[in-house]
This record gives sequence, C-alpha cells and structure tokens, in this order.
Amino acid sequence: MISNYAKNLKLYNSLTGKKEKFIPIQELNVGMYVCGPTVYSNAHLGNCRTFISFDLIYRYLKHLGYNVRYVRNLTDVGHLENEDDTGEDKVSKKARLENLEPMEVVQKYTLDFHSILNKLNTLPPSIEPSATGHIIEQIDSIKQILKSGFAYEKNGSVYFDIMKFNESKTYGKLSGRKIEEMLNQSRSLDGSVDKKNPQDFALWKKAEKNHIMFWDSPWGKGFPGWHLECTSMSKKYLGDYFDIHGGGIDLKFPHHDCEIAQSEAIDGKNPAKFWMHTNMLTLNGKKMSKSIENFILPNEVFNGNNKILSKSFSPNVVKFFIYQAHYRSVLDLSNDALIASEKGFKKLMSGFLSISKLNHNSEVSDFDIDLWISKCYAKMNDDFNTPMLIAELFECVKFINNVKINSKNLNTKDKERLAITFNDILFNILGFNSEISKVEKSNSQNELVELLIKIRSQARNDKNFTLSDQIRDELFKLGIQLNDDKNSSSFELI
Amino acid sequence: MISNYAKNLKLYNSLTGKKEKFIPIQELNVGMYVCGPTVYSNAHLGNCRTFISFDLIYRYLKHLGYNVRYVRNLTDVGHLENEDDTGEDKVSKKARLENLEPMEVVQKYTLDFHSILNKLNTLPPSIEPSATGHIIEQIDSIKQILKSGFAYEKNGSVYFDIMKFNESKTYGKLSGRKIEEMLNQSRSLDGSVDKKNPQDFALWKKAEKNHIMFWDSPWGKGFPGWHLECTSMSKKYLGDYFDIHGGGIDLKFPHHDCEIAQSEAIDGKNPAKFWMHTNMLTLNGKKMSKSIENFILPNEVFNGNNKILSKSFSPNVVKFFIYQAHYRSVLDLSNDALIASEKGFKKLMSGFLSISKLNHNSEVSDFDIDLWISKCYAKMNDDFNTPMLIAELFECVKFINNVKINSKNLNTKDKERLAITFNDILFNILGFNSEISKVEKSNSQNELVELLIKIRSQARNDKNFTLSDQIRDELFKLGIQLNDDKNSSSFELI
Repeated sequence: MISNYAKNLKLYNSLTGKKEKFIPIQELNVGMYVCGPTVYSNAHLGNCRTFISFDLIYRYLKHLGYNVRYVRNLTDVGHLENEDDTGEDKVSKKARLENLEPMEVVQKYTLDFHSILNKLNTLPPSIEPSATGHIIEQIDSIKQILKSGFAYEKNGSVYFDIMKFNESKTYGKLSGRKIEEMLNQSRSLDGSVDKKNPQDFALWKKAEKNHIMFWDSPWGKGFPGWHLECTSMSKKYLGDYFDIHGGGIDLKFPHHDCEIAQSEAIDGKNPAKFWMHTNMLTLNGKKMSKSIENFILPNEVFNGNNKILSKSFSPNVVKFFIYQAHYRSVLDLSNDALIASEKGFKKLMSGFLSISKLNHNSEVSDFDIDLWISKCYAKMNDDFNTPMLIAELFECVKFINNVKINSKNLNTKDKERLAITFNDILFNILGFNSEISKVEKSNSQNELVELLIKIRSQARNDKNFTLSDQIRDELFKLGIQLNDDKNSSSFELI
Repeated sequence: MISNYAKNLKLYNSLTGKKEKFIPIQELNVGMYVCGPTVYSNAHLGNCRTFISFDLIYRYLKHLGYNVRYVRNLTDVGHLENEDDTGEDKVSKKARLENLEPMEVVQKYTLDFHSILNKLNTLPPSIEPSATGHIIEQIDSIKQILKSGFAYEKNGSVYFDIMKFNESKTYGKLSGRKIEEMLNQSRSLDGSVDKKNPQDFALWKKAEKNHIMFWDSPWGKGFPGWHLECTSMSKKYLGDYFDIHGGGIDLKFPHHDCEIAQSEAIDGKNPAKFWMHTNMLTLNGKKMSKSIENFILPNEVFNGNNKILSKSFSPNVVKFFIYQAHYRSVLDLSNDALIASEKGFKKLMSGFLSISKLNHNSEVSDFDIDLWISKCYAKMNDDFNTPMLIAELFECVKFINNVKINSKNLNTKDKERLAITFNDILFNILGFNSEISKVEKSNSQNELVELLIKIRSQARNDKNFTLSDQIRDELFKLGIQLNDDKNSSSFELI
C-alpha cells in the first residue's frame, strides 16, 4: 500500500528546472536508472555522494510503499578519455599500466566500489548491468539509430549526427546548451577526421591495432561509445519510458543530453519523466584533483591514513555530513566540517538511544508529535531536503533532553511513536548503519575491561586479594592478560 | 620468485586418474578456471565446499609465488532443467515464480553468493564473468563448431553432433563413459525431436514464445546452451590451453565432457592440462535434498536457525570441518562432526595464540622445526592434503603445550619460525579469518558482562552494596541495563 505521504512528494526535475509533483508512470511501480561508476580506478568520494543520495531516494520511495526497480550500471568499457572520442578507453589503458587483463581491472575496482558502498550501508540496486555484458543490445541500438537516419558509418566507426538530429529535434535540452554556440566554441582541432561535425559523438568506435577490448559488429571489430550503454540498458530493464534518471551533475552534459538524443532517435521519446542530478563535492574549497594533491579516498577517510584530515571518521559520520547539505548544493569537505558532523551525529544518536529510557508517566505530552512527524515527511517530500529533516530531528532531540531532566512531559503513546518514527528515519530512510551505531555507542570490550580493572584496583586497595585475583584469572581465561604496573594495570589480548 | 617447495607439488588429474607433477604451461603464470554457481537460488553448502577447496588451491599457488589468473563464472542463463534440453532455463523460471525480471533474480542470488563466500573468507577470483555478458563470444564459438562440422542447426536451435564427433575423436574421455553404452541406456523419450541423437546437446536453443531471456543470433532469437559458456569464457580469459580446470564432481559428466568436446571441435585441444573435481558433501549420511527436508543453508549453519543442528557454527569452524576431509573424499556434515570441528578449531587457535607467550630461554629446541615445516609443505604438495596438514599442526600444538608447562624447550629463533609458519598456514594458505578468530576467542562483550554480573552477585552476597551498585551504575552508563531477578541478573543493551 502506498503511504498517504506519497501524494505530496515533489522532485526537482533538471529537465524543466522546477520542482514537480511525483506521479509515477505506473501507479505502484517506479523505475529508476542511475549512471554508475567507471570501474577503472578506486571509488571516489564524489561518486559516494551521488550514490548515497540516490540510495536515500530509493529507500524513501520504498518506504512510501512503491515497488522500485533501481538499475545502476557499471561502466567497464568505452569511457573514452578525450572529448573527441579518439582516445583509448580508460579500462584498457589502466589494464596496460597495471599489466592486467582488462576484466581483471574491472573486477578489482568493482570489488573496491562495492566494499565502499557496503561500508556506507547503501542498498544494492535491483540490477547492476555492465556495458561489456550488453554489447548485443548496444549494437542493436546503433542499428536502430542508423535506420532512423540520425547516424552515419565512417571507416568502421559509427557517429551520431547532431546536425541531422537538430533539424527535426533539439539536442541539448537538458543542459540548455544551444547547438549554434557549441559550434562557435569548437576548435577545428576537435573531433576525429571521420566526423562530419566536432559535436558528433561515437556510437561505435573501430578498434585500433593495439586496442585490447573489442567485439565483432556489422561495422567491423570495435567497441561501443560511452553514451550508448545507458540508453541500451535502461531500455532493456526499465523500458522506453521510466520515472527517474539520475547521476552526478557532471553527467548532465554531454552524457545525458546524448542519451536523450539517442533515445529520441530510436523511438522519439525522452526516456525519463524526471532527470535528477547531484551536485559536486569539493575538498577544502577546491575541486578534488590528484594532480594538485587535493584528493582523498573514502577508505582514507574511514581509516585516517591521509595527510588532509586530523583523524579518522566513520562511514556513518561521512553519510551524516553528506546529508547535512541538500543534494543539489555544492558541498565542501574539510576537517572542521567532519569534526562538526561527528559531534552532530553523536548528539543525534545519543538522543535517539535515550528515548527508551525516558519517563512516560505523564498523561499529556509537551510535544505535538503529529505535527513533528508531518514536518519530517514534509522535508523529505520537498525534494529530499535532508538538512531540513536533520534540523527537525534536532528539534526533537532538544525535547527529549528536556524530558530527561524532567522539565518536559511525555506520555506512553507518544514515546512509542517517537521511538518508531526516529528509528524509521535514521535506519530505514537515511540508512545509517545501526550495527555500527551500537558499536560506536558502547565501544564495548575496552570499556568493560577498564571497568573490571577499576573494580580490581579498588579491591587491591581494600586488600581484597581474593576478588582481585579472581578478576585477573577470569580475564585471563577470556584471553585478556592484565599487566600490573605499580599504580595501574593495562591489558592485552592474548 | 617461485618457492622451492613448488617443484614437488603434485595434483590429482581427473583426466588421467593419477597424481601428476604440477608443471605450469608458462613458468611463472598459472591459469585456473572453476565452474561457478547458477545464480537462481541461495548458495548451497556443497558449492561452498567446492569454492573453499579451489580457494585453498588459489591461495597455495599464490603462496608458492605463482602469478595466478583465477576465473570463476556466474551462470545467469541457460542452465537447462531437463537433461533433454527442452525445459526452460532456471533463471527464467525463478523470475516468473518470484515475479521479477530475470536479472533481478541474478542480482539477488549473486549478492547472496558473494556474501556467503565473504563470510567464509575466500578470496574473490581475478575475473568473474557471466554467461549473459558473453553472448557474442558464445555465438562465435557456435559458428566455429558449425564450421568444423561437429554441429547442426535444426528449427532455430543448434546441437552438438556427438556421433559425428566420435568418428574422429572421443567423447566422454573425462568420465570414461563409452558412447555405445550411453546409446544403449538412453530411452527413446529422451531428447528433443530436433536432435539426431539423444546424446546431442544444445549449443543454441530457440526461444519459445513465453521465454523471457533471449538474444538475436544467426539462427534466430534464442539463448546459449549451458555447456557453452565455460568454453567461450575460458578461451577468452585464459586462452585455448590453460593449467587447471575445476569444479564439483557432479560436473564431470556431462558438463566437462561436453566442454572438452566443444574445445576439441573448435581447435582440436582439450582446454586444460589438469582437470580437478571436488567430492560431494552429504548431510547426516544422505544426499542433501530440499524435498525430503535433508537440507541446510550456509547462513542457517552460521546463525543456528535450523532444525538439524543443536547450535550455530562460525564460518571458520565450517571451513575447518571441510578441511578435515580431503577434497576428493565424500564428506558428511552432522551435528557431532561440527561439534568436534569446533573443539578442534579452538584447540588449534589456542595453540597458535599461545606461541607468542612461550618461554624461549633454551639454547636448543626439543623440536625439529625444519622437519616439521617440510612435512607441512609435503602434505600440501600431496594434492592439497589438508587433513594430513592439520594433523601436522596438531603435532606442533602438542609440543607447544609441552613448552607451556616447561616440559619441552624452545629457542628464540625456532619460536619465531614457528609463529611465522603457523600464521602463514592458518591465514594465508588455509584462509581462516583472523579478525573473527580473535572475536571467537574473546567473545568479548557478553562474557565480560557475565563476569561483572558474577562479581556483583558475590558482592551482594557479601552485603557489599557499594560495589554492587557501582557495577550496576557503571554498566548503565555503558548502555547495559541489568535486570535483577531474585537469584540472578540478566542484561540488555539499551
């Protein structure tokens, strides 16, 4: 059953530049396609922001009761390096550098990507198709585009014909770029000699002599152009017209405008009702870049092995940090920002964790829980406004802390609803990792051993050597060895 | 650099029925292909045994210094249900039952498979190609087999022609089955009407009207036969002739015999130098079977939610249990066997963990460490004889325990080598999870809290209420609430 809150959901549609009511194409089912990573290097924090944001959207749509088919691809071939499409593809290049078969590179970085997203507790998509796994479908798409007259073959490659397309349709409707301006800006050097116009893009690229990834096709041995895979795979798994197409803002142009052109060339349809784009993640105010050493990998944030941050930060804290900005705003990562997020996340969790211990003897509550719940959903329904949602959560934490010191009242029914709603928002919708939250909270083993050491030290002061020896011996049985110093004890796992 | 031990490695070759010296085709590189799971249902414990065994082989070859390319496929289409190849494929069927797109079924069970193997701490293969991702390559293989005259097309399907093949070559050389006997045994009902002979197998199968997974081909819409994918993908990633081809013993016939026939039809070569097969895992003396409820899933063993075992067993214990039999012997899973394995694994770990604390003041050691190390490698070199290797480890544990009580001597240098070798064998070669081993050992939180409850209960008996209240309050601060009963206390995390 679809929740009542669903009817007020509004999304910002990059295509129209407006927030629009979300009415799915089918009543109960939602199809969502998100452009996934190119698996030729380690997962990037900016990518993580994108995939956390769409994970939130996936989770929220499911929470509202929709049956969501979420397709996120793996680009394992054909992501050309140069805008003019003449370069070799990045997977092949990396394979040569690392002396691996290209699919070994793909495997290595796919595993890295999955491991990072797993740490960040995002849900796996319903289907995760790969470009190399869909060559037949891409060849089929090219045949259709050739048939419709919007592409041409030249020397074993096939290019999309932008000028031809623009005679009857509009190229660039997502980015709003005008074809005339693009033409004026382009230098004569741009593009392959085979292209009619520098803006034309490759649908199929002939494999040069030393290219190591290629397939047979009606146009000879080669490989598909990067823009094509998303068109072929979204059509295969979501149909010609689906609800949401998402990706990072850098994909708006040319990738998504090319996708729209390809789909319109095949069947006349812009493939998605809503186009959604997540904004950039900068580092200390600048674009992340390996060349100027303004760069940090997700695992380096989690384990603290980096020169940029003063300490490590858990995946939950990174996720909280990302949610503190709206997905359409630029977000800047810095040590101070993460420290503040860590503090905020701890405060939020400790607020949540104290709900179960609150006094609930009062008949009435000094908190309008209905209003609060409806406000929380209103924030989510307002284009997934997580910073405003978090502000609502902190409003509630303020109240919780007042109940703790008995300066506000809470009744049993409201306490229960508070706990359920808070739990839903933190773990089902925002997708924090509750396992890790508990560990972060209790830090169990060390603190318990420290408590036992304290009790033992008191016992020794009291000359209760039976007890102090008992504690030492029983800890030893559990594999914990106490090392007694003159005044204190430390311990080690044995 | 390749270890000196490598030159004595012998593998049992299913093809010759003998243990043979392992000399790789290239001096430093080893190519290994293992038939992976069909991802249309939950990972099976029998599969786990196979993949743990080949993980051991992968780890050991790497340990010896080889550069190993380990390819393990995912069968996500075309695993026909009936021997006569007329059934629908299992992925499609499951998709219809679960009302999912076939690739959603694939995603669901691929994630399950990876999660189980991850718990069992196996290394990911170098490449994990999928059947649906290699349709072009399979179509290409069919074209080659047709060209060589060993296949025929009939009504949109292509079949391998066993009789034709057998005129000049030998079908069944791995299983040793004779084509004449197969013919005598086959009933007239067997096989599709399109086949010349019931033993012929499908290379390409025409998609019937309501079949949901199919691709275009020179023979019309259809899908590849199951035996084909391993031929096409092993050729693509390991070449026409590679070192090791492995799988469960149930794959020997017909799957591997068909693979050999396909490869010989394409280029005249048996694709692998060594064929290796792991034996069956039974449950309480009988074949595992869902229909007679003699069945258990890996996760049910790990979490204890099942009607067959008295308690849960950790992935490390399951792995230890599997290693206690040689991979070519039938192994029977039972509650008693797992209880015994758990005891054995704990004893082994506790032996290993006590090495660092051993006295090493002696000048000479009462243990011939060189002999022991060479014996350990000899067991591994004898076709990966893990039960004998484990026996050697226990021999050493016996010595360790004698050093503990000072009845045997150990010197510093030998202690160091003991620690290094033990560590190598347990974690690098056998691939036990060292993280979990530590947790299993300390079992931390619960046991520590139980100890605190015991001390508190003593304190209450002694009327030391200061101490008993202190323990209660400090535990509460750590998020642990004690619930006092008349005679005992329990606790919960809050």
